[in-house]
Amino acid sequence: VHLVVVGGVAAGLAAASRARRLDAEIEITVLEKGDVVSYAACGLPYLIENRIRQPEQLVLHKPDFFLRERDIRVETGAEVVEIQPQRQTVRLQSGKTLNWDRLILATGARPVHQWPEHPRLFALNTLGDAVRLHKHLAQTPPGRAAILGAGYIALETADALRHRQWRVTLHHRSADLLHRHDKELTRRLDRILNAHHIDIVHNHEVNDPLRLDADLVVVAAGLRPNSELAAQARLELGAASAIRVSPQMTTSHPNIYAAGDCAEVVHLVSGRPAWIPLGSTALKMGRVAGANAAGHRERFGGVVGTSIFRLCGLGIALTGLSAEQARQHGFEPVEVWIEAPERARYFRGRTAAVQLVADKRSARLLGASIIGQDGVAGRINVVAAALAGRMLLPDFVNLDLAYAPPFSTPVDPLLVAAQQLMKSC
Amino acid sequence: VHLVVVGGVAAGLAAASRARRLDAEIEITVLEKGDVVSYAACGLPYLIENRIRQPEQLVLHKPDFFLRERDIRVETGAEVVEIQPQRQTVRLQSGKTLNWDRLILATGARPVHQWPEHPRLFALNTLGDAVRLHKHLAQTPPGRAAILGAGYIALETADALRHRQWRVTLHHRSADLLHRHDKELTRRLDRILNAHHIDIVHNHEVNDPLRLDADLVVVAAGLRPNSELAAQARLELGAASAIRVSPQMTTSHPNIYAAGDCAEVVHLVSGRPAWIPLGSTALKMGRVAGANAAGHRERFGGVVGTSIFRLCGLGIALTGLSAEQARQHGFEPVEVWIEAPERARYFRGRTAAVQLVADKRSARLLGASIIGQDGVAGRINVVAAALAGRMLLPDFVNLDLAYAPPFSTPVDPLLVAAQQLMKSC
Repeated sequence: VHLVVVGGVAAGLAAASRARRLDAEIEITVLEKGDVVSYAACGLPYLIENRIRQPEQLVLHKPDFFLRERDIRVETGAEVVEIQPQRQTVRLQSGKTLNWDRLILATGARPVHQWPEHPRLFALNTLGDAVRLHKHLAQTPPGRAAILGAGYIALETADALRHRQWRVTLHHRSADLLHRHDKELTRRLDRILNAHHIDIVHNHEVNDPLRLDADLVVVAAGLRPNSELAAQARLELGAASAIRVSPQMTTSHPNIYAAGDCAEVVHLVSGRPAWIPLGSTALKMGRVAGANAAGHRERFGGVVGTSIFRLCGLGIALTGLSAEQARQHGFEPVEVWIEAPERARYFRGRTAAVQLVADKRSARLLGASIIGQDGVAGRINVVAAALAGRMLLPDFVNLDLAYAPPFSTPVDPLLVAAQQLMKSC
Repeated sequence: VHLVVVGGVAAGLAAASRARRLDAEIEITVLEKGDVVSYAACGLPYLIENRIRQPEQLVLHKPDFFLRERDIRVETGAEVVEIQPQRQTVRLQSGKTLNWDRLILATGARPVHQWPEHPRLFALNTLGDAVRLHKHLAQTPPGRAAILGAGYIALETADALRHRQWRVTLHHRSADLLHRHDKELTRRLDRILNAHHIDIVHNHEVNDPLRLDADLVVVAAGLRPNSELAAQARLELGAASAIRVSPQMTTSHPNIYAAGDCAEVVHLVSGRPAWIPLGSTALKMGRVAGANAAGHRERFGGVVGTSIFRLCGLGIALTGLSAEQARQHGFEPVEVWIEAPERARYFRGRTAAVQLVADKRSARLLGASIIGQDGVAGRINVVAAALAGRMLLPDFVNLDLAYAPPFSTPVDPLLVAAQQLMKSC
């Protein structure tokens, strides 16, 4: 049995490694079109910030590691140009053809717009992109940087450049940071950016980034799934043209799996397929695809839309749906924003802002945002667990959360928010 | 309508305040036998540590605050000596009698052993106890301290005295720290204590604390609920002689409620009543008792046994059941301990130890322990939320937890543990 994996970053290598762990006999080949595999894509902003000084620090393993330790053949510079489902082969750019019994697509995502190359213009999609920007920053005195985008990568990059004394302006085409359809969240993020001298131009569709008045332009706007190979092979596509997959990560072809940023995922709160490319999700999907391709039977039910990033020393975290998103999915949302100390004053407790969203009809919890100094990840994860369990607000408000003065307050900020929201339910 | 609340610390004042918020008309009286109300009992170890310099910092509100801001009459030095359920009265030590329409008992807990007073012997049950020890420490050079007990208060006190350069020895009668019946947990705590030069004598029943070779003895062993008034009034008692309550916090008398450390609580993992006195739980029970006494209808389902404390710079957190406790409750437990970095290396990620316990038959998650530097509260709370939702391990392993390098790793330590434990299920 030959398992071929297309793509060698997060999902692809998680799939290959899992398959090997469950089956010592199967033959496994990973085909990566780039020249590096197994790198920590979520660390790229910290290379830009210069917290990470050497790009090599972001490379977890080299191809020979996989061959030596896991008996997985990893080929770099191996671009697949065609999948032939009937013949169970893939054809490479080099002209070579490989047979497969099981195929896993982990082809990732890329920016929607591919701008022509220019010395002042940068993307941050691959390690190569980040290395190019990192080198440029090492040779260039700080000046004015323009960033296109409103997602967390755009904001992380703005923060990284600010750290390096660049004067940063963010441009984005709507007035909706993080694509959350949440005016209050955008307003709060605007305030944080302003307080740290990052300018932001809302409602600005940039048609030619090189005409922006800036010494450096980073395009971090608009990703799309790399699903062309799948489409050409007539595999079914779904949300945002990502590859449609079952909970077992199979595509519409029973021996072809897809995982990671190229595939869609069920949003467990809306109940509908969505496209939410994230490294941590890619690893989970990859694990399940690898297990099933190796003949086991596992499932990945979906995500609840959790994300987190650091901005100007704060943690910004989201999960579930905003009120507006909930409305679009047929819920009758009620929401609350509260501010409460993260822990005891005598443990330097700062104030966190917590938003909770619930459905008025069912009292089901639907989403949250948290902006704070400390404990942000833990608190958003509590909501993520509650959302996965379809928890109702009257149960959430009585959650048995840990309390001691170094860690929290007797009524945790999450529960303060839930108590407030109960009044609207 | 007259609501009388017996006890003015956490549960009592939460109940009175909630009743007032829901009903502006009701007459509310709080009777506290001590001379201080509304203090943060969980902060007492930090007074001993001298992180808090003035005992007054632990007092949240004085009696006149409640009268002025909430129209709640708070009487200190008002010890109730008898409850007369038929006549709906309470009799005070002073001889005075008060009528009530609804009565809430929030009488707290106290040490099992009341040792005779001695200048070298201290307890840490009330603010008064802590103030006495605080004064003593201010006047005494560091020497040798003996602490009796193995619960979190004993350990917090050991840590506080260590901070003040005392040489500390803990004595306890079993070899089971935190009463968790978990040998590996005890072993790990032993190692932390040893590394910080806190000695520990296991299996040492101390019959006369004054014969210990120490300059100072703190007794932090063995609490019991203050349920004598309830027993005399023929209210039903439950686990550990705590007052039996319904999810509405009613006792066996329909107009008498109980809340906080004097009352029992359902453990939602074992499904059985338990006695787990904790400030954060007391506040929730108080809220519900107050709401129901004011004519609303709310419920408090129970706890999952979450607790946390700081020890030698680490967070130590527990929730649910240990494997041995699970076995005692009829489960067939499997467990795993893993060690994994709390976040990216370039964000100074340290190693956390995570234990997960699940039921082999049903794959239901049953409990967790976490020992770590950062994110400990958040991670234990994720398990607490999962336990409240009776989550199964295959769902837990796919939880959509937040990931970015400053906050976690792509596969969170909780999920690393869950992946390991899946192999035993």
